[in-house]
Amino acid sequence: MRLKMLSLLLAFGAVAQADEGMWVPQQLGEIAGPLKRAGLALDPADFADLTGKPLGAVVSLGGCTASFISPNGLVATNHHCAYGGIQLNSTPQNNLIADGFIAASPEQELNAGPNSRIYVMDSITDVTDAVNRAVPAKADGLQRQQAIENATKALVASCESEPGYRCSMYSFFGGVQYRLFKQMEIKDVRLVYAPPGSIGNYGGEVDNWMWPRHTGDFTLIRAYVGKDGKPAAYSKNNVPYRNARWLKVARDPLAEGDFVMVAGYPGRTNRYALADEFDNTENWAYPFISGHYKAVRDLVHAAGKADKDIDIKYASTVRSWENVLKNYDGQLLGFRKSGAAALKRAEEKAVLAWLAKQGKSGKPALAAHRQLVALHMQDRKTQVRDSLVGSIANLGLLGNARSLYRLSVERTKPNAERAPGYQDRDLPRFEGAMRELQNRFHPAMERQLMQYWLTQYIALPADSRNAALDAWLGGNDAAAVERALDGLYAGTSYGRLEEREKWLKADRAAFEASSDSVIRLAVALYPELLAVENTGKARAGEYARYRPVFMQAVMDYKRARGQGVYPDANGSLRLTYGNVTGYTPQDGARYVPFTTAEGMAAKATGVEPFDAPRRALDLVAAKDYGPYADAKLGSLPVNFLSNLDITGGNSGSPVMNGKGELVGLAFDGNWESVSSNWVYDGSLNRMISVDARYMLWVIDKAFPAPNVLAEIEAARQ
Amino acid sequence: MRLKMLSLLLAFGAVAQADEGMWVPQQLGEIAGPLKRAGLALDPADFADLTGKPLGAVVSLGGCTASFISPNGLVATNHHCAYGGIQLNSTPQNNLIADGFIAASPEQELNAGPNSRIYVMDSITDVTDAVNRAVPAKADGLQRQQAIENATKALVASCESEPGYRCSMYSFFGGVQYRLFKQMEIKDVRLVYAPPGSIGNYGGEVDNWMWPRHTGDFTLIRAYVGKDGKPAAYSKNNVPYRNARWLKVARDPLAEGDFVMVAGYPGRTNRYALADEFDNTENWAYPFISGHYKAVRDLVHAAGKADKDIDIKYASTVRSWENVLKNYDGQLLGFRKSGAAALKRAEEKAVLAWLAKQGKSGKPALAAHRQLVALHMQDRKTQVRDSLVGSIANLGLLGNARSLYRLSVERTKPNAERAPGYQDRDLPRFEGAMRELQNRFHPAMERQLMQYWLTQYIALPADSRNAALDAWLGGNDAAAVERALDGLYAGTSYGRLEEREKWLKADRAAFEASSDSVIRLAVALYPELLAVENTGKARAGEYARYRPVFMQAVMDYKRARGQGVYPDANGSLRLTYGNVTGYTPQDGARYVPFTTAEGMAAKATGVEPFDAPRRALDLVAAKDYGPYADAKLGSLPVNFLSNLDITGGNSGSPVMNGKGELVGLAFDGNWESVSSNWVYDGSLNRMISVDARYMLWVIDKAFPAPNVLAEIEAARQ
Repeated sequence: MRLKMLSLLLAFGAVAQADEGMWVPQQLGEIAGPLKRAGLALDPADFADLTGKPLGAVVSLGGCTASFISPNGLVATNHHCAYGGIQLNSTPQNNLIADGFIAASPEQELNAGPNSRIYVMDSITDVTDAVNRAVPAKADGLQRQQAIENATKALVASCESEPGYRCSMYSFFGGVQYRLFKQMEIKDVRLVYAPPGSIGNYGGEVDNWMWPRHTGDFTLIRAYVGKDGKPAAYSKNNVPYRNARWLKVARDPLAEGDFVMVAGYPGRTNRYALADEFDNTENWAYPFISGHYKAVRDLVHAAGKADKDIDIKYASTVRSWENVLKNYDGQLLGFRKSGAAALKRAEEKAVLAWLAKQGKSGKPALAAHRQLVALHMQDRKTQVRDSLVGSIANLGLLGNARSLYRLSVERTKPNAERAPGYQDRDLPRFEGAMRELQNRFHPAMERQLMQYWLTQYIALPADSRNAALDAWLGGNDAAAVERALDGLYAGTSYGRLEEREKWLKADRAAFEASSDSVIRLAVALYPELLAVENTGKARAGEYARYRPVFMQAVMDYKRARGQGVYPDANGSLRLTYGNVTGYTPQDGARYVPFTTAEGMAAKATGVEPFDAPRRALDLVAAKDYGPYADAKLGSLPVNFLSNLDITGGNSGSPVMNGKGELVGLAFDGNWESVSSNWVYDGSLNRMISVDARYMLWVIDKAFPAPNVLAEIEAARQ
Repeated sequence: MRLKMLSLLLAFGAVAQADEGMWVPQQLGEIAGPLKRAGLALDPADFADLTGKPLGAVVSLGGCTASFISPNGLVATNHHCAYGGIQLNSTPQNNLIADGFIAASPEQELNAGPNSRIYVMDSITDVTDAVNRAVPAKADGLQRQQAIENATKALVASCESEPGYRCSMYSFFGGVQYRLFKQMEIKDVRLVYAPPGSIGNYGGEVDNWMWPRHTGDFTLIRAYVGKDGKPAAYSKNNVPYRNARWLKVARDPLAEGDFVMVAGYPGRTNRYALADEFDNTENWAYPFISGHYKAVRDLVHAAGKADKDIDIKYASTVRSWENVLKNYDGQLLGFRKSGAAALKRAEEKAVLAWLAKQGKSGKPALAAHRQLVALHMQDRKTQVRDSLVGSIANLGLLGNARSLYRLSVERTKPNAERAPGYQDRDLPRFEGAMRELQNRFHPAMERQLMQYWLTQYIALPADSRNAALDAWLGGNDAAAVERALDGLYAGTSYGRLEEREKWLKADRAAFEASSDSVIRLAVALYPELLAVENTGKARAGEYARYRPVFMQAVMDYKRARGQGVYPDANGSLRLTYGNVTGYTPQDGARYVPFTTAEGMAAKATGVEPFDAPRRALDLVAAKDYGPYADAKLGSLPVNFLSNLDITGGNSGSPVMNGKGELVGLAFDGNWESVSSNWVYDGSLNRMISVDARYMLWVIDKAFPAPNVLAEIEAARQ
């Protein structure tokens, strides 16, 4: 849990844009040789076909990765990736998170929620020329950004003219390359099998990022489509998707040293960030966000103890906060231990020195670097305000109302001219979010959270304010906050789903005429936040002008020194490969690459998160591992380590052996890899996967689902 | 630190008497073959000569082990074994514990204190027949105990008739065998070299019992004798002892898998304890003692923060408490994890069942077992009272006064008839203890501790009281305790050294006529405590009657099943051997057998106990390891693991390679071995040693003493 993309970042101005890391499929020419030498039995050329074997089986869930493991749309991903869907189907009386879920027949498969998606790759197209041609020669920042945005929208719209597809633009190396991804968008996703939380989340936050690990972090979902085989919203009449490609679960036992590879959708790395951007992350962003997340987490914990309903409704949010918290704390520790700041600074200095030596040809990149630093310093000026105002404006009801009001504003324009995220193609997401809010919102808790953020906000100095927010507050003390909150929550019916459903279709005038206090605040905040957004856009345009120039220089510098250059992760499909191997966490100790069922049992205390199911413990005591035991280990493997380069977004990625068969699912990185998004260390960074044999043992014996097992077995033939 | 004998046990009735474990030299016939096969290059027959090579170099410090490493009386032991001597020479202004100590010339070597001893082995004699013959056929418990005591005294006295020697009786297998050890007693011990505490105690209590470990736990002392070569009390005119045997520091690099052996003086194991004795330890003794030690440690910590003098004076005492605390907590955890109670109970049941099957020949042992259980149950009845009264009666001034009064009483008898510990041979220890008290006593702290124990005592029920103590208290509430303490400390001059020195020579009448409040309490407590002692003696006599009968049966049972039988550790010389090897602390992890200097540096925080000296860190950063680096490790080894079977008392034991050369000093067991005194697990129990190469590196480079290094080097030729 842990490699799901961290999507809950506080909004702050400087979203670092940089690029380096995992292989893009287009680099197959470069990696074919190394892949063969490392142990790939398949023909590397197979990877050129994104819809062939094995890549055709790999899908995105949006923030997580997954893979088909049967021809009937059965998809394997992590338990923590399907967590939202499991939670949506849980109640205090019927807690699927704790108890697990088995659909014993197709009819029992549960709707995983209106926002659940499975994206099946269709094609990737290089559109760099098209984007660059769209930018006028003398464009200023805002014009440039707008031009890129417009070109992106046009390309995406054209791509999506075929119904049932979703297209996304990805920029590589800060804009050196642009690629358009076309994916089939499956909208009816159902829950098939989830182990009990005491297997799927065994070790919980205690073991999060840790080795030795014993987490059965897997869940099975299924893709459904309309009877015509095309994507369709959830309907009882839909049928399982008949996918052409799926991964067979391997029969050869995986062992230390074996070749393994992962295809997946890593979210973001920042290995090419400027030294100043890195410093700001280390010294401001991470400590600032950590501090606030700790505070709001504690608020929810306290409230959740008194009210089980709050506990369940905010469980997913708190999990995400805690994942971010532990991640940031670990990154900060890693930065300090590795002296990352000095390292980054020295690297950048070396590039600049090299550029200076190039004479005239180096000048544009040097100038671009100066511009990038200046832009970054502008971001810094407003980052505290933008972050706090963002936290207020995006919270719960207000956040939802703001997005629907914005939608009504954008809808006054033709579809193609609307801001990204507010086009017709985005409507289903609004609907889903609006519904999901019902299960993730509690009035008393929301008020407490809003009160927290406002209390932070009123402490800001006079030159760091949002005038609309100030006007609404009507004062700058705790009493003003209370008065404002009293008004906000007394004067609204926006907490009711029927009400929100009405606003989804309302026009701009209706919003602006409303007397609902939440709507009124959403409308009042709009102009100033739009201005802030436009400032950000203009700056993004400036970044887009200078970043590719400097990044190209960095690439040239690295290539001149014989170093490989792979773009930073950006949420697009990547390949990474390596071997099953342990590591040395500290002098005098070695982590070996496999854990076993006995180790799982040894951790059991009966108390969450080490409350292994009695049945599983009995099976371990009897060494009842069936055909899933590993002869070399003399036990049932549970989790394993490998030296693959992954990051958040890779959660649920299929781990494949040299034949392209499924040997496990990636679900975490070790603690030492938590800072690898900025600084990579091959001797310490490890991927943690759940072994496919453990998954099968759980499905077969520990939490048995004979029908599910039979489907997987049939697909292995 | 950690393998020094735990001598600070609260006095409680049932001191478990049992025996099994490490090889006695007399078992050489049994182990010669295995030793050769395991990798011993020496002739095993060499071990038969206790004064030859290599055993002649191994010495006891009384509670610790050590070895000669030069022909001029230079002795290597652990830093924590020499801690008392280092502390005695420390002041707040000149803190040798923190700063370390180097005698740059013989004149600078410091007196390690009047109670410091080095015992050099002379001979071991089997005296089983003599002891058994001394016991009358129909003796009751007290008579039996008295007879054994008298026989022991006579044998010891005869043995010690040669001046300069100390003789000790050891019972094996609970009295199946008795052996008399004769050792030369060197009384002038001087401090030669102690590394700074940030090397010698690196990791402190945090790392105590832990692996990975990076503690340079060694110190060098020197044996001095009179000009005639005979042992003598400290005098400026004494000269270094010229020992015939010493260990050469090995030149061959020690590596994983290598044969290693240890000769030393393990204190006590209880692998043959009765199941009921074990239960009482697990359920009463350890929790009871731990609870009280934690409380008094906290009292001293709080007082020490306010008063540096208290901090220093009680440092050694607190360290011992903390060592016991961590040890007991770890043992209790180990007991629970291994299900030791059930294991012990099952073992005993099996022996009893086997005995029952033997028919008539098994009956005496079965009867003996019933008697032993009954005796143990009697011990339990008074253990809380005896423990608390003991803690009061043995504390500081009162404890010292009681011992001197008892001495005056015993002195009214002929030397041979006095109680053990009060004979002429014991006088120097009284003198030493009396002096040392000066550096380990603070009036305010002592009063607080006394108040603590009395407060515990007054909570005891009416049938668990000491009448003399009750009479002195004159009440049973906090006010009575305060009044009694006011009187005790206002009416005494016993806190002054000159005063105590007077009482060392005083006769019984002088004590009984004294108006000093401490002396008066000591005298008042005497009769009842003597009665308790005699009850204990009578019970010990009963144990001595039945224990050998049952123990012989246990030995027969084990031998009948082909199991090796070695007596429990009892403070006498033992051999243990095995290999340098790591272990698996938990599923998914492996502890490797060597730590390195880089690992030491990686732990450095600048804050105690990880305040590695700047100079050492600079040397590590420069990889300046001189000839001490290990080629295979690519670094300087610091500590290493081996599977040798040791326990408290083995601290400072020389670790020897197959040629009998010094490769390190044992100083700790791993956390998993802390419960091995009761239940041994060969897969998890490991000895931790400081590598001799690290010792040389420290002496050569990190805290340089060229003269000391030269002496060791000369002795290696």
